[in-house]
Amino acid sequence: MTTAQLVEQIKAKKSFLCIGLDVDLNKIPQHLLATEDPIFEFNKAIIEATHHLCVSYKPNTAFYEAYGLKGWKSLEKTIQYLNANYPEIYTIADAKRGDIGNTSTMYAKAFLEDLAFDSVTVAPYMGKDSVEPFLAFKDKHTIMLALTSNKGAFDFQTLETNGQELYKQVLETSKSWENSENLMYVVGATKAEYFKEIRKIVPNSFLLVPGVGVQGGNLQDVCKYGMSEDIGLLINSSRGIIYASNDENFAQAAAVKAKELQVQMEEILINRL
Amino acid sequence: MTTAQLVEQIKAKKSFLCIGLDVDLNKIPQHLLATEDPIFEFNKAIIEATHHLCVSYKPNTAFYEAYGLKGWKSLEKTIQYLNANYPEIYTIADAKRGDIGNTSTMYAKAFLEDLAFDSVTVAPYMGKDSVEPFLAFKDKHTIMLALTSNKGAFDFQTLETNGQELYKQVLETSKSWENSENLMYVVGATKAEYFKEIRKIVPNSFLLVPGVGVQGGNLQDVCKYGMSEDIGLLINSSRGIIYASNDENFAQAAAVKAKELQVQMEEILINRL
Repeated sequence: MTTAQLVEQIKAKKSFLCIGLDVDLNKIPQHLLATEDPIFEFNKAIIEATHHLCVSYKPNTAFYEAYGLKGWKSLEKTIQYLNANYPEIYTIADAKRGDIGNTSTMYAKAFLEDLAFDSVTVAPYMGKDSVEPFLAFKDKHTIMLALTSNKGAFDFQTLETNGQELYKQVLETSKSWENSENLMYVVGATKAEYFKEIRKIVPNSFLLVPGVGVQGGNLQDVCKYGMSEDIGLLINSSRGIIYASNDENFAQAAAVKAKELQVQMEEILINRL
Repeated sequence: MTTAQLVEQIKAKKSFLCIGLDVDLNKIPQHLLATEDPIFEFNKAIIEATHHLCVSYKPNTAFYEAYGLKGWKSLEKTIQYLNANYPEIYTIADAKRGDIGNTSTMYAKAFLEDLAFDSVTVAPYMGKDSVEPFLAFKDKHTIMLALTSNKGAFDFQTLETNGQELYKQVLETSKSWENSENLMYVVGATKAEYFKEIRKIVPNSFLLVPGVGVQGGNLQDVCKYGMSEDIGLLINSSRGIIYASNDENFAQAAAVKAKELQVQMEEILINRL
């Protein structure tokens, strides 16, 4: 999917919500455990109930790998289901990969070609040649960690390097990489004031923003400082939506939570026109 | 496996060689493609021919994920085969994972508990709470990227932070994390002179060293500067060994290459006594 198509979808749905499909079998409704593929059944129900309220789904690969072969199968079925039924939805493999060049190529092929996600998240530590193999895929995005939403973000990401914090250096440096127009960045919502600084370096890039909700970030502040001319934000919520309830009406409860966020987003989009 | 058991094995085999099982179906002998699971058959043959010459095997997960469900199954079969037949061998899941705390816990469970690897590689960018969930596993190691063997290592890892390079800061900071005695570090062999500096910060930690062979690193130099009192080195070679030949005798050819390295290692171990 191109960036323009993503922006179009955001405007049509009046939403820039991404829903994280981080499925933990200990947290889903117990009646699903009797089905052949509880993870997929859960995802399918969530997607059916929420696809009109969001523009993107983001399965985190950890939650699938934790269930081995079965989990990997659930991941495959989920992305195939999304691509077959909702091709307009923007899909993100939250994998945080990154390795030496020929190895990164294998990861890129796995997520962007074989599983056919629209994008994949990567870690920046290994530098240019660990990320460029992902950027080579046409009409796909590579979403690189910049400033994450966890406490450990302050261990290395905010260290001073060359007179500016490491995450700013990461943003700056990555702009010179081949096909850098295919880059997006992960920026945590827990640090809204940082968005102003970030927009000085990457004024137009899309930012994937985790941490609204459970992790404490504030939607209004993020939009105030982080929104670009072409919106440029995908706000992710995972647990706050998908685990809104664990009884039989879990999907409807998830839709209520998603709708709350979508309505806030619609207001923000209207106010800025 | 404990560090002491690993050291014991190194002394018994007179080898600190790790063989990377990075299986690319385009590079393996063509006759294997007719079998039900070519990746596993390839690994099994390599392991049978080389297990007495090395102390460790390291499948890189990218090469398995690239083949989807089938690849994941080959990975499972490979680690199960190793654990069942060669429990003394030290196994490394080269996965370079790292995510927010509850997500890292899922990865740790997947690799250290369910697949039962002895260790897993992780990326440091997200800091303490992204790595500690791995460190919590008893008698398992977490191998964190410090200074990698690729060109991109110079993009961020060697930037000056607080008066020292980032990778040194990563080493220093990680020593204060909970269960940090379970940490090992990835340090590329292409930069042997760096080992002297690294040993000032982590004098005793095991270092996993890729980049000997194809990537140009020199074994003697690495050992001269990098060896600790208790050896403290695992030298990895992947392509240089497993793709020594792609005809029917590929496993024997791999053993010849592994033996060359083992003999050099034996000499180094004898000379330092």
